[in-house]
Amino acid sequence: MASIVASAHAGRGSGGKGPRGLHVGIGDDAAVVDLGSPAVLSTDAQVQGTHFELDWLSAEALGRKAFLVAFSDLSAMGARARWALLSLEAPASMSMRRGRALLRGFVAACRENDVALVGGNVAAAPRLALTVTAVGEAHRSLTRAAARDGDDIHLVGNPGDAAAGLELLAAGGRRGKLVQAWRRPPCHLQLGRALSRNVGVGAAIDLSDGLVLDLSRVAAASGLGALLDTDRLPLSRALLAAVRGRGGLVNEALEYALGGGEDYLLLFTARPDRRSRNSIASLGRRHGVAISRVGSMDSSLKAGSVVNTRGQALEGGYQHFLTSRGARA
Amino acid sequence: MASIVASAHAGRGSGGKGPRGLHVGIGDDAAVVDLGSPAVLSTDAQVQGTHFELDWLSAEALGRKAFLVAFSDLSAMGARARWALLSLEAPASMSMRRGRALLRGFVAACRENDVALVGGNVAAAPRLALTVTAVGEAHRSLTRAAARDGDDIHLVGNPGDAAAGLELLAAGGRRGKLVQAWRRPPCHLQLGRALSRNVGVGAAIDLSDGLVLDLSRVAAASGLGALLDTDRLPLSRALLAAVRGRGGLVNEALEYALGGGEDYLLLFTARPDRRSRNSIASLGRRHGVAISRVGSMDSSLKAGSVVNTRGQALEGGYQHFLTSRGARA
Repeated sequence: MASIVASAHAGRGSGGKGPRGLHVGIGDDAAVVDLGSPAVLSTDAQVQGTHFELDWLSAEALGRKAFLVAFSDLSAMGARARWALLSLEAPASMSMRRGRALLRGFVAACRENDVALVGGNVAAAPRLALTVTAVGEAHRSLTRAAARDGDDIHLVGNPGDAAAGLELLAAGGRRGKLVQAWRRPPCHLQLGRALSRNVGVGAAIDLSDGLVLDLSRVAAASGLGALLDTDRLPLSRALLAAVRGRGGLVNEALEYALGGGEDYLLLFTARPDRRSRNSIASLGRRHGVAISRVGSMDSSLKAGSVVNTRGQALEGGYQHFLTSRGARA
Repeated sequence: MASIVASAHAGRGSGGKGPRGLHVGIGDDAAVVDLGSPAVLSTDAQVQGTHFELDWLSAEALGRKAFLVAFSDLSAMGARARWALLSLEAPASMSMRRGRALLRGFVAACRENDVALVGGNVAAAPRLALTVTAVGEAHRSLTRAAARDGDDIHLVGNPGDAAAGLELLAAGGRRGKLVQAWRRPPCHLQLGRALSRNVGVGAAIDLSDGLVLDLSRVAAASGLGALLDTDRLPLSRALLAAVRGRGGLVNEALEYALGGGEDYLLLFTARPDRRSRNSIASLGRRHGVAISRVGSMDSSLKAGSVVNTRGQALEGGYQHFLTSRGARA
């Protein structure tokens, strides 16, 4: 397996062929790379049995997803992604073919985003786990604490699809847009960088644990409340169709959107003036994504709270969501 | 558990109290830190059942060991260690007390080495695993490829103790210097940096898989052979006593020293002239470590080979060692 990691990335050494800025790559005690300061660092893991089951996605898709989930944090900081490290735990029984497919998916996602895999580790373990360290450099960091009173809240993409897809997978489903939303989170590295250069933009976060919970984190860090207009949430046709197909109501789709995790959508706040709104609409067009204005930050609300337009406090998040689902199933 | 990671390191935010150079710490999407370029990056994992069993060492010692093993790679590059990320997989049944002890050990090791924990992740998993990313900055990198023909080979500390300690642990032993050598690898970050500033020093590596195997990696990367004078290997009294105690010969102790893994000793090459030797002896005194000259790099030997003074090719390494032990037991 170690040799797979070593061979996965062609670029090595200080010669001309490797990725730009790579002094020492995989094969020495550590990688030595150029990196602008401040540096942006994040680590995330995908663990079999906790985050996925082997038959939920191909090995290649899993390698890609491990990259996307880890680098989603860098998008949400507005960082430029540069380098990746991958620590793999794998059963000794795992085939070389499967190992190669995992790495192929991971490295393909690296290449598409101008990131190089420069560190690897392989350890035997009873279950598969991929721990990824994402390394980048900051322009201006879009911290969670940078939201301002009155800021618009913008959301990129359709919330709830991945959580509904996860539920389908757990129930034996293997196809469709919702499953695909779970399998392949969006990648907003380019958009995140563009947002960090936009002076109107304040805070940002990627939605890993559910819209309400993650928005409450932005609110708490910024010392503000968040007013969320749930009527403006861009529920996907696929989600609405799935809920209707089993006789459910729109409210049920909303539950996925508010409480479902693993969306990895980008949420950010920005000045509410027309110029800022226009510039964000233009960014959406340029990057080919749907950006929805779904609420505003409000200092008159309790810090850390998320409230709907009827003044009701919303609660949620991945844990809550799972429990309520489970209780109803 | 996530809250444990968040609270483990007091230093946060851009205020005055956090570690120097920390812009955004644990609690946001990613850490934002100052870092000199080139950056040095490495990742390593300690996995229950593969690297350790729960009753082999305290949770605090395990946290410390996970740090030491990962940062050993940075010592071997001559890098200055700056930042750490810790991704923890833990059974849901693990107590908060155990989790806190793990982190206490990890953070204590961080502090002793002027490193700050800036990124954390916690995931449920059937077994405990600690994946550490070590981040530093390079002065001059002591790559494996930098050995020169005629260079002395220097070894810091006593090889074989950790492997003998591991064997004792597996057999039920819990005490003594050998067990302790396995539990608490040495930390050579200061020495590594000093070596990187010493123009006489060439290549370096940390011994994770056994002296012969790791030395052969330096030899292969440098396009040279290595002549290893096994009579000069500094076998510890504890190792010799353990072997004699069960009626073994010195050769058996040598087997541990040549093939045993997990020593995390520093091996480096340096110019063979008197000035260089004196300066290395002086470094050893200053850092309070025993540095032994155990051989030399030799272009007349087959590249990548390790040969003893009788001209016999040595083979070994952790896998080989385990097999030969197992076969004899």
